[in-house]
Amino acid sequence: MPPQAPPMFTPTERDVLYDIISARRDMRHFLPDQSIDHAVLQRLFAAAHMAPSVGLMQPWRFIRITQQDLRQRIAVLVEAEIQRTAAHMGVRKAEFLALKVEGVRTCAELLVVLQAPDDGTVFGRRTLPEMALCSVACAIENLWLAARAENLGLGWVSLFEPAELAALLRCPEGAKPIAILCVGPVQAFYDKPMLEALDWRTAKDLSAFVFQDYWTESAG
Amino acid sequence: MPPQAPPMFTPTERDVLYDIISARRDMRHFLPDQSIDHAVLQRLFAAAHMAPSVGLMQPWRFIRITQQDLRQRIAVLVEAEIQRTAAHMGVRKAEFLALKVEGVRTCAELLVVLQAPDDGTVFGRRTLPEMALCSVACAIENLWLAARAENLGLGWVSLFEPAELAALLRCPEGAKPIAILCVGPVQAFYDKPMLEALDWRTAKDLSAFVFQDYWTESAG
Repeated sequence: MPPQAPPMFTPTERDVLYDIISARRDMRHFLPDQSIDHAVLQRLFAAAHMAPSVGLMQPWRFIRITQQDLRQRIAVLVEAEIQRTAAHMGVRKAEFLALKVEGVRTCAELLVVLQAPDDGTVFGRRTLPEMALCSVACAIENLWLAARAENLGLGWVSLFEPAELAALLRCPEGAKPIAILCVGPVQAFYDKPMLEALDWRTAKDLSAFVFQDYWTESAG
Repeated sequence: MPPQAPPMFTPTERDVLYDIISARRDMRHFLPDQSIDHAVLQRLFAAAHMAPSVGLMQPWRFIRITQQDLRQRIAVLVEAEIQRTAAHMGVRKAEFLALKVEGVRTCAELLVVLQAPDDGTVFGRRTLPEMALCSVACAIENLWLAARAENLGLGWVSLFEPAELAALLRCPEGAKPIAILCVGPVQAFYDKPMLEALDWRTAKDLSAFVFQDYWTESAG
């Protein structure tokens, strides 16, 4: 069989992508007692694994948490970091603690995404070693969009102490947890980012983010 | 007008996303003397700007390079880094120099993506300050998928010295260029990643990247 030519996309297909990108949310509210089909989960991982990676490093790793006891231990780690973060929030401490910022105990699937120990790749990262981390983040974004297209919520939890989580998951030296992903069915997707809906912070329009030829952001 | 309910996606729409993710390539060959419509470019930026960001930081900035002189200076920076990288390649130096690793001079649009100076956000990054960089990478992945859905090639060039590029673009202290994006029409999209097609490196299957409950990668 000859290899298929890479597809060209129609305006309708293009708009499907824009609709998915636009509908993606960082979810913290999940329906309890749900599960995700094995085939769906595999599609999510496959989408992540098709992410770009610098020098073809493929530096992402995924740990699927299946033991209830392990999930509870991860929840405890996250809850401890929420308290530590709150202590650094100054006058917004009470407001922060009133937010729901994770769904670790209720989501259908709990995944941990890690950056693998450095494999010494020089290509494309002699001056930017953090390109490996960027590749991991791109894999997470792929997985996130895939989840939304499957009508599953996903929340990226970064409230944890990486060294503690690495120890709990028996990671080797140099492996670093980047994300705890809560994935699963939700009652409803948020209309807009939760932090905006709850007036935690106001998102700024695109026009402030695009410059021509030189950095021209006005201070403040 | 009441707000529209967030959409639910059909299996057909879901598969469109998977097709786009699967067809995305890191392109280095562009058709010369092309341009991108203003409306298309705006859609790409809008897709990037809908990326997730930790604590709603929106830490991404985009500089569109329109001056030919400035583009040539950026090309010179990249070419210098290609030589420095080659010098670190050991026995693979000649093989590396034979690869086409960027399309800065020929692509229709040249964009630089930067991480903004830190705004002090604690939410979600007390223990993981690099979450801001992850947000920038997610924005780039959104833009990349959008470009593919518009049937435009995109190549992420990371072969440059960030401090030199920041100085050239008159960036303030703390702003860091993360990517030079070459975007534009291409003759054809690669069937598979160019580094794989040219046997630079072999991609590994997904099964090696997903663990259950604990890190279980076998060494080597």
